This record gives sequence, structure tokens and C-alpha cells, in this order.
Amino acid sequence: MPEIHAARRRRAQQAVRDLGADAALITAGPNVRYLTGLASSNAALLLPAEGDGALLATDSRYAGAAERDAPDLELLVERFIEGKLATEASRRGVRRLAFEAHEMTVDRHGELAAKAERVATVPFGRKIEELRMVKDAGELEKIEAACRLSDAALAEVLPMLRPGMSERTVASLLDHQMAVVGADRPAFETIVASGENGAIPHHAPGDRELRRGDLVTMDFGALHDGYHADMTRTVAIGEPAAWQREIYELVAKAQRAGIEALADGVEAGAVDASAREVIEAAGHAEHFQHGLGHGVGLEIHEAPMLGYGRTGKLTDRVPVTIEPGVYLPARGGVRIEDVLVVTAGDRARILTSTTRELLVL
Amino acid sequence: MPEIHAARRRRAQQAVRDLGADAALITAGPNVRYLTGLASSNAALLLPAEGDGALLATDSRYAGAAERDAPDLELLVERFIEGKLATEASRRGVRRLAFEAHEMTVDRHGELAAKAERVATVPFGRKIEELRMVKDAGELEKIEAACRLSDAALAEVLPMLRPGMSERTVASLLDHQMAVVGADRPAFETIVASGENGAIPHHAPGDRELRRGDLVTMDFGALHDGYHADMTRTVAIGEPAAWQREIYELVAKAQRAGIEALADGVEAGAVDASAREVIEAAGHAEHFQHGLGHGVGLEIHEAPMLGYGRTGKLTDRVPVTIEPGVYLPARGGVRIEDVLVVTAGDRARILTSTTRELLVL
Repeated sequence: MPEIHAARRRRAQQAVRDLGADAALITAGPNVRYLTGLASSNAALLLPAEGDGALLATDSRYAGAAERDAPDLELLVERFIEGKLATEASRRGVRRLAFEAHEMTVDRHGELAAKAERVATVPFGRKIEELRMVKDAGELEKIEAACRLSDAALAEVLPMLRPGMSERTVASLLDHQMAVVGADRPAFETIVASGENGAIPHHAPGDRELRRGDLVTMDFGALHDGYHADMTRTVAIGEPAAWQREIYELVAKAQRAGIEALADGVEAGAVDASAREVIEAAGHAEHFQHGLGHGVGLEIHEAPMLGYGRTGKLTDRVPVTIEPGVYLPARGGVRIEDVLVVTAGDRARILTSTTRELLVL
Repeated sequence: MPEIHAARRRRAQQAVRDLGADAALITAGPNVRYLTGLASSNAALLLPAEGDGALLATDSRYAGAAERDAPDLELLVERFIEGKLATEASRRGVRRLAFEAHEMTVDRHGELAAKAERVATVPFGRKIEELRMVKDAGELEKIEAACRLSDAALAEVLPMLRPGMSERTVASLLDHQMAVVGADRPAFETIVASGENGAIPHHAPGDRELRRGDLVTMDFGALHDGYHADMTRTVAIGEPAAWQREIYELVAKAQRAGIEALADGVEAGAVDASAREVIEAAGHAEHFQHGLGHGVGLEIHEAPMLGYGRTGKLTDRVPVTIEPGVYLPARGGVRIEDVLVVTAGDRARILTSTTRELLVL
């Protein structure tokens, strides 16, 4: 859809002009993809502040993909793309070149500056990431599809869970089922945390085997056409103990509060607070130390971040996760996570549909 | 093994002194792991040019792992680790602080410099990567284990391959079998390229289904305890055509030439040339455009790079891949890749043991 990318580039050009720059060099992979359509691990875009002279550079491995996915753009096939685009910027008379200082290394910037004769480089900030926050209909469809695939994979895996199965095997089953139902690949490294490991929010699945009496937290998602899903369910292997039910119900209640707070115009920090207050009121403040959620899209974690004290307003068509947790050191934990889209004049739309009731397997 | 990491830090301190710096700030994740034992996505090491005052910083998620894996190091648990270590360097009277300019972004460097009062920051270069090139016995054991797991997974998957199976399903079977045999996870995104897709060296597995008459290239590897394996086999689905056999035999011959060239003291570029000449002599120079191989270890691609015109000598205990390929646009391709360890006074030792004969399934 070249016209969609052209429209995005026009919005990005406004940001270049706002900064008083003559052009921007876009080097962060997801940003290049957003503005051009090209998915590549080695591509960059020289975007002038005005007009249609954007220049896409990539190496020979991606030349075919660039011609197919960005047919409206002038293409430079080159091994060392950044230096070449810097030279080209200089040749075009650019005097102030914005660059992505949050992505570019000091070494690469040094090489760039050496090639960009008579050009001052100025940090662009996360301007393209800000544009990416509000999704268009096509993007929302892709995220929705990624969420559907994640739900479908989980539905296949849940009946397979058995005591004696290792965390690693469960993670691998989720990854495999995502592939079977049609995901491009897992959106990130699947987390499976059983029993006491559930107290570690980012536990890497290991040899520990599922046991009767465990809570098992699975945090996973499918990648579909560049867009990420991210969901978490905690299930019980056998009848749960009272403390397990209690923290499950608490996390579920906190999640409902977070979901209800999602609205067009609300502050990111306020959404976090609404869920956090529920957990704090139950005396578990210190057992929920991460943020409530984050945006999803071309990256698994992107703007907006929903965390304690975060500022910035949510708006229509911004997809975010809501993922409170309670982690009891050396005992276990619960996290429940869904992807929702903020919707103007309505409740947030939930894209992950697996039940949020405690499943006892 | 704290004493191994302490010995590595002493070698790294020599590099700091060689640069005339008072300390180095190590921020590249694999380098921090190499020097401390801690695997973390957010950790950094302040390494003084002399003495035992190294300071490891990480955030609360990794504090337990740091205490377990780096018990000999002073530990700072902090959210914004780089700024804190810069402040500490300044407090300790550091005047010249080496930093990893190939890893650090311009933004992070700006924050660091602001905190490092009266401290000049100087690029450290890839000094730790150079130290990592030659492996110790423990590292070689881990790479060997990762290779064994990769061989074992392939042995399980080969009999499952059938016409009608999608590339994505084959990739997912490989990933799943690696988990089943005990890999921590895939070492990188598994490549499965069938039929005409085999002409694309880095093809992402898609919906294309295996057909009789296809060559299918599988490039995959297991991760074991932080160390990476990397192997490729191309197999035939049904009896191969003459052109398929011909390029297979050519690639196998080129690989043998590359393997035979591996020796203590040989130039990296000479190894590449020995295999490339075989392919060029057969008139396929333009069908082999990537380098012959690369080092493996804590990263999937690390020093030394074996490519056209690359300089630097191979030495004892350096593991590398040898992976020539021939890619015929719109028709298909072959790649054969193994991991070998350069061994002083002997032939290179091959760590991946799956047959290199063409398998017809």
C-alpha cells in the first residue's frame, strides 16, 4: 500500500520541519518499515523536510523486497548504507540532518558525520515512534489477527498440559502451535513459569516440571505480518490452594480496573494507578513492581508505556496491554495480560479472547 | 566459576591500560557476561585499569542472578545503571573512561557524559570481542554440546519431512525438537527455504509447501548455556535433478576445501578464498555472495569473520562456521554449514556430525 506509507512520510516530514532540519535519516528498523513498507535488518531512509525526494537504501539481500514493497521510492542498493545516504544528504545541500540518536551507536554516528560534509547532525528524538502510537485500520487488523492466532495456539496447548511436563516443553508447544495456526513466528521469547518460578516476572523456561498444586504462568504471543500480540494466562494444575485463588482473584480484579480506566484522553499514569491501587489496597504493593502495560505494534514494547508516574494521554486507536501481576517470592505468582484498543466514545475493545477466569487443569 | 571470570578481567585490564585509560565501562551484554558470568539484558561493568575494584551494576530483576553468578564482584542494584556507574567512575577519580562505542547509542552516551564529571570518554574498540575469539575448554564444551543438540534435533526431524508440509511447519518442528532434546532455545531464527526460495540465503520460512523435486535448506542451531550452534543442511525431497546434484556436489567440494584450509596461523581471507575458488572455477562466482563463515560463541556471529579480503589470523581454539552456498535465482540453492574448531598442530575438529552427503528423502 504505497499510498499509506506516503501519507506517513508526509506526517514525518512535518516533524522534520518542526525541528528546523532539512532532512532526517531514519535508521531504526521498525521506523523504516513504518515509513516505507520494507522489512529489513539493514535499511535506512533519507527523508527530506519537504517534497517527494525520499531515498531508501538497503543492501542487495533486500533489493527485491524493496522493489516489491516500496515501489514508489527511489532505491539505493549499497552495502554501507548510512555513509552513502550521508554523502547523498551533503550532495543535496542538506545543512541540518536529523538522526535517530536513540538507535544509532556512537561509532556509526562518527562514520556518518565524517561522510556528511558541511552537514550538522541533530537528534530527531522518538518522533516516528510517536507517530506509530495511533494505529490505522490495517494495522489494527494485523494486531487483531496476531491476537487471534495467540488465542488459538493457547486453546490447543491447554488440554495438553500435564504434571511432569517441563516448562521448556510447554514453551515449545506454544511456539509450535502458533506456527501451526499460522503465526510468522513467536513475537518474543515465550515465558513459562511454574510453581515458585512464577514469582519471577521474566523467568526463562527451564527444566522444572509441572506439578499438581502449581500455578503456571504463560506469557507469549504471535507475530503476524510484522505486528505483535502479547498475552499472559496463569492456570492451576489441580485444585488451587486458598492463597493461590486469592492472588488470582486480586490480579483479575486489578486487571478489570485497569481495563475500565482505558479511555480516549486518559493519562497513561492514571491507568496504571487504577489497577495498582487495587493491589496496594490488598497489601501487595511490593509484589507488583513492573508497569501495568505498554503499546504493541511493529515492536513488542512500544509507546505508550503505562507505568507508575508515566505521562501522556491515551487516544483513540492506541493498542496497549494491561498486565498486572502479583509475585510472592519463593512461592509463586499470577499475571493476566490482554491486548486492548482504546476506542473513542466507547469502552476499550479487547483483542485477546481467552477466558480470564482461573482455569483448573 | 568466579576464577575464570577474574582471569578474563585481568586480560581485559591489560587492554584498558594499553589504551591509556583509567577504567572501562563495559555495556555490550555478551561482554558483560564474558567478564562476570552474569547473563542480563540490563547490566554493565565498571572495570578499573588495575586492581580488584570492578563494579557490576544491574537492576533488581537480575540481582539474585548476579549474587549467584558473580559472587566475587561488588554489586550495585540500580535502575539506570550506566549513569550511576559514570558517577561512580567520576567519584573514583577516573580521568579517561573507555566505553564501547560500537554498542552505545548517541543518546546513552550523552547521558553518560553528563554524569561523568571531569571524565573524558574514549572509544574502547572491540577489545573484549577480540579476547572472546579464543575459547577456553569450558566454552568449547558448551559449543560442542550446542552442536550435538542441533544434530540430535535434525535427526528427529529428517524422517518427518513430507511433501505438503510448509516451510514454517518444518522450522517449527526443528525448534520444537531442539527444545525436546534439551536446548535452551533456538540460537537464532531458523531458516527453512524450499524450492525456488532456496535461492534466497536468508529466506524467512513461509507458507510454501515442500514438493517432490525440491531442495530444502535448513539453517538452524541450538543455544546451550549461552553458547550458540549454527549448522545448515540441504536435502532433496524425492530424486534430485542433475542440476541439483551438480550444485550440491560443488558446494560440498567447496566446503571440504574451506575445512582443509582451517589451520592455526592461517589468514581468515585465505580460508574464504580456498572455498570460493572452487565455486568460481565452476563458473558460479556470482552465485556465492556472502562470506564463508564466522566465529560462534556467546553470539551467533562474532569474530573472526571469514570473508573475501578479511584480515587477521586464525589460531588454536577458535571455533568458526564453514558455510559455502550456491544460489541460482528463481531456481533454488544449496548451503552446507558446520562448526569447526581450529586446533594447533592438527586438522580442525568438526563439532556438527550430521552427514554432508546429499540426503534424498
